[in-house]
Amino acid sequence: MSTIANTPKPPYYAVIFTNLRTDVDEGYGEMADRMVELASEQPGFLGMETVRETLGITVSYWQDLESIRAWKQNVDHREAQRLGHEQWYADFKTRVCLVERDYGMLEG
Amino acid sequence: MSTIANTPKPPYYAVIFTNLRTDVDEGYGEMADRMVELASEQPGFLGMETVRETLGITVSYWQDLESIRAWKQNVDHREAQRLGHEQWYADFKTRVCLVERDYGMLEG
Repeated sequence: MSTIANTPKPPYYAVIFTNLRTDVDEGYGEMADRMVELASEQPGFLGMETVRETLGITVSYWQDLESIRAWKQNVDHREAQRLGHEQWYADFKTRVCLVERDYGMLEG
Repeated sequence: MSTIANTPKPPYYAVIFTNLRTDVDEGYGEMADRMVELASEQPGFLGMETVRETLGITVSYWQDLESIRAWKQNVDHREAQRLGHEQWYADFKTRVCLVERDYGMLEG
């Protein structure tokens, strides 16, 4: 998580999840860890990057829209989303994006 | 920066800049602040979200590819990129993405 995701050549998809937490911690850390693990087992998962200060940004990378859709509908993930809405997140925005181009340190 | 960017209805563009720093701090904080200010004055700039732990993620939002291209070529920004390559970043990845869809807390 605390490294740069090793994604394939574009095109692929990114889901940018930007969020602000409530002060309710109950069960949050455990669920977040579980969701990272579960996401990484899904078909089409390509990688994830996540950072939090006050603001949290988690970017997950996916092969196509179908794999994003399937992950959003995953039963355990739906339960996590429900608890997120109710307890853990004061606000969030999810952005589904087509990565058209990327470059790293050596290609900049 | 420590809030969720208030972007318009898609489509628009996102530039995801994921990075790892070196231990060289010289001039970094000042330059980072200056680049945020300068970016926000550019035509087509829509917002920015930035968070760092060990990993840093900065997402900037733009109206179109042309505004991203112009910002990348900005003279002061080019100098910052050069110093970033040489001194401040151990590694980074930049991803240019078309935001196709987004939703927030009330539309999830």
